[in-house]
Amino acid sequence: MHEVDYHADTTRLEALSDGVFAIAMTLLIIEIGVPHPVAGEGLGEALLELWPSYFGYAVSFTTIGVMWANHHQMFKDIYRTDHVLTVLNLLWLLCIAFIPFPTAVLAEYMRQQDQMLEAVLLFGATFTITAIAANALWLWVATHRNLIDDHVSEVRIRSRTRRYLPGPLLYAAGLPLAFVTPWISVGLYGALALFYLLPLNDATS
Amino acid sequence: MHEVDYHADTTRLEALSDGVFAIAMTLLIIEIGVPHPVAGEGLGEALLELWPSYFGYAVSFTTIGVMWANHHQMFKDIYRTDHVLTVLNLLWLLCIAFIPFPTAVLAEYMRQQDQMLEAVLLFGATFTITAIAANALWLWVATHRNLIDDHVSEVRIRSRTRRYLPGPLLYAAGLPLAFVTPWISVGLYGALALFYLLPLNDATS
Amino acid sequence: MHEVDYHADTTRLEALSDGVFAIAMTLLIIEIGVPHPVAGEGLGEALLELWPSYFGYAVSFTTIGVMWANHHQMFKDIYRTDHVLTVLNLLWLLCIAFIPFPTAVLAEYMRQQDQMLEAVLLFGATFTITAIAANALWLWVATHRNLIDDHVSEVRIRSRTRRYLPGPLLYAAGLPLAFVTPWISVGLYGALALFYLLPLNDATS
Amino acid sequence: MHEVDYHADTTRLEALSDGVFAIAMTLLIIEIGVPHPVAGEGLGEALLELWPSYFGYAVSFTTIGVMWANHHQMFKDIYRTDHVLTVLNLLWLLCIAFIPFPTAVLAEYMRQQDQMLEAVLLFGATFTITAIAANALWLWVATHRNLIDDHVSEVRIRSRTRRYLPGPLLYAAGLPLAFVTPWISVGLYGALALFYLLPLNDATS
Repeated sequence: MHEVDYHADTTRLEALSDGVFAIAMTLLIIEIGVPHPVAGEGLGEALLELWPSYFGYAVSFTTIGVMWANHHQMFKDIYRTDHVLTVLNLLWLLCIAFIPFPTAVLAEYMRQQDQMLEAVLLFGATFTITAIAANALWLWVATHRNLIDDHVSEVRIRSRTRRYLPGPLLYAAGLPLAFVTPWISVGLYGALALFYLLPLNDATS
Repeated sequence: MHEVDYHADTTRLEALSDGVFAIAMTLLIIEIGVPHPVAGEGLGEALLELWPSYFGYAVSFTTIGVMWANHHQMFKDIYRTDHVLTVLNLLWLLCIAFIPFPTAVLAEYMRQQDQMLEAVLLFGATFTITAIAANALWLWVATHRNLIDDHVSEVRIRSRTRRYLPGPLLYAAGLPLAFVTPWISVGLYGALALFYLLPLNDATS
Repeated sequence: MHEVDYHADTTRLEALSDGVFAIAMTLLIIEIGVPHPVAGEGLGEALLELWPSYFGYAVSFTTIGVMWANHHQMFKDIYRTDHVLTVLNLLWLLCIAFIPFPTAVLAEYMRQQDQMLEAVLLFGATFTITAIAANALWLWVATHRNLIDDHVSEVRIRSRTRRYLPGPLLYAAGLPLAFVTPWISVGLYGALALFYLLPLNDATS
Repeated sequence: MHEVDYHADTTRLEALSDGVFAIAMTLLIIEIGVPHPVAGEGLGEALLELWPSYFGYAVSFTTIGVMWANHHQMFKDIYRTDHVLTVLNLLWLLCIAFIPFPTAVLAEYMRQQDQMLEAVLLFGATFTITAIAANALWLWVATHRNLIDDHVSEVRIRSRTRRYLPGPLLYAAGLPLAFVTPWISVGLYGALALFYLLPLNDATS
């Protein structure tokens, strides 16, 4: 049933994944339309009013980039693929490619604050589910030792497992916080994006 | 006429194909526009009303992903390319890259159900023709043994041929069913996407 | 000045090019919007009225695909890159990535036939210039023997040069013909796309 | 903290980067919409009036292409990656993927010249910051000799450092000049794109 395909290498799975990550990152920009200042307003002001779009672009671009780095690190240890791995990878990519949509929704409704709660919940839920998909892929690999390169130690596998687990919890924490005020959650997602870029943690190594 | 180009490897054909598959999967999302609730409606409701768009996104993403997995499997056995193979691959990609259009049409007309039949027929016909293109490519390869790696057995080739054949028939079955009610076809295409993800079948191995 | 960079391989030049070709092919589809039937019209009719969009999609997708195949064939013979080669490749890609725009213009103005002439001229001129860029790249290579693999014979180089030359002339022929009636040119570009797919010619080998 | 990951190669970092560069270049075109002539105007005139869009497309495509060539040249010397390198590369890509937005803004406001100053400042600032990000990446590498291939000489590293430094200054020069008249800056950015294509300089080697 779950027979390993020994002839498979992971090259094309990584190529397809790199494509989806790169396109999802780059598509974010076309959700930001050219602004048209209202009467009496300058283009400069209109451009500044788009700041939630720039914020959303930066946070989502960085988050997808960090997830790509995790994907890259996982597949340095993965040697073989099987059907479940392929399917779990596809589900992760499905979440990644979805991100431009909640990003555009959040950017628009950060300017119309009365409906911002729902926008933040959609944004945070997407990140949470994406992080769960990443963990599901890694847990499948970690529990199927034959998919992993022989030279990878048990210690390394367990350390990786521990490192990925907080992701979904941190993203999920933004959901109840949004009911206090959506801006806390927005700040949390921005802070998480910055945090993962710091050299202090090894999220991308 | 159909001379094999012995100097060709399949690397760049696979790279171009990976690109088209990845972009087609990721472009699906930009067909979902940011919703603008009508008066008295909340953003949450407006987001929920977009469910046909999410459904279409998931079904088309998964279907393209499964077809990519088939493409990947075929090209593990293919060793050389010729003109006809290149052209048939191009026609398959032409179908794949077309999928975001019927997906957007279906999502919109699932909300305006009086015209849903035509939208489902366009959607189902696109999947059917795409599956025929996949079969055409494989049949050309299966009947031109010199394109295939020496170590690939006749049994494996014939098993692959048998495995791909039901695809067009299953997708085509949704077309007459749509005249009973379009929802049966929609359910069928959703079920097929789920089915191919199950580890029970070996569609992606 | 034009010193050859002996450390360069062509791998990443081909990777970037594959990306641009794949994206240009796939972006064609998002120029086709979901149709909204006018009162008294069915969705089926509205979908059929979009036929110029499908025609433009198929012609441009196929033409870009054939040009990709030519690019692929050229780079099988190219061993080293220099500054001019990189620049000429970039100019060719600039033309390729432009194609979705004249395709969208042509599709729209095939339905508003009083302005179709200008749309066809833009479409034909884009194809002509793209074919000139392809020839410029090859002529630079053909006249700089040190960029080419040692095992490639003079005969093969000259045969390739002869094969690429008619391209710009054939595409340019559609420009004066458009003044008789734009439909002749449209037919010519459709016929050329089909012709290059035929196994009779070796445009992609 | 900044430990080098000796198992990492740069292959997938380059693959992701190639993807983002290629997509940013190709997405530029979808910012140019199909023109709709006003009453009494022909399609030809309407197409000509779009010249700022063509100009912006060509300048941004070429500039991204030159930056890709620099990226390509840097990574020919880079042998290992570390966390900071990955993050700086991501920040560079974040700038590259942003370019279609200021390009679309500039194209639109070159036709509405009373607000052109702000559009040029956004365009020039984006190019300046992108060039700073490129320099930051290279300076990190140049000061961390263990990331670089052993066969790369100190002379080569220092020559590369000197070559990249003028970039941000040249792009930044367009910002104060825009206050004289925005057209000088527009001319400067066009001239810089052309200049880097000349074989006289070695920006892409």
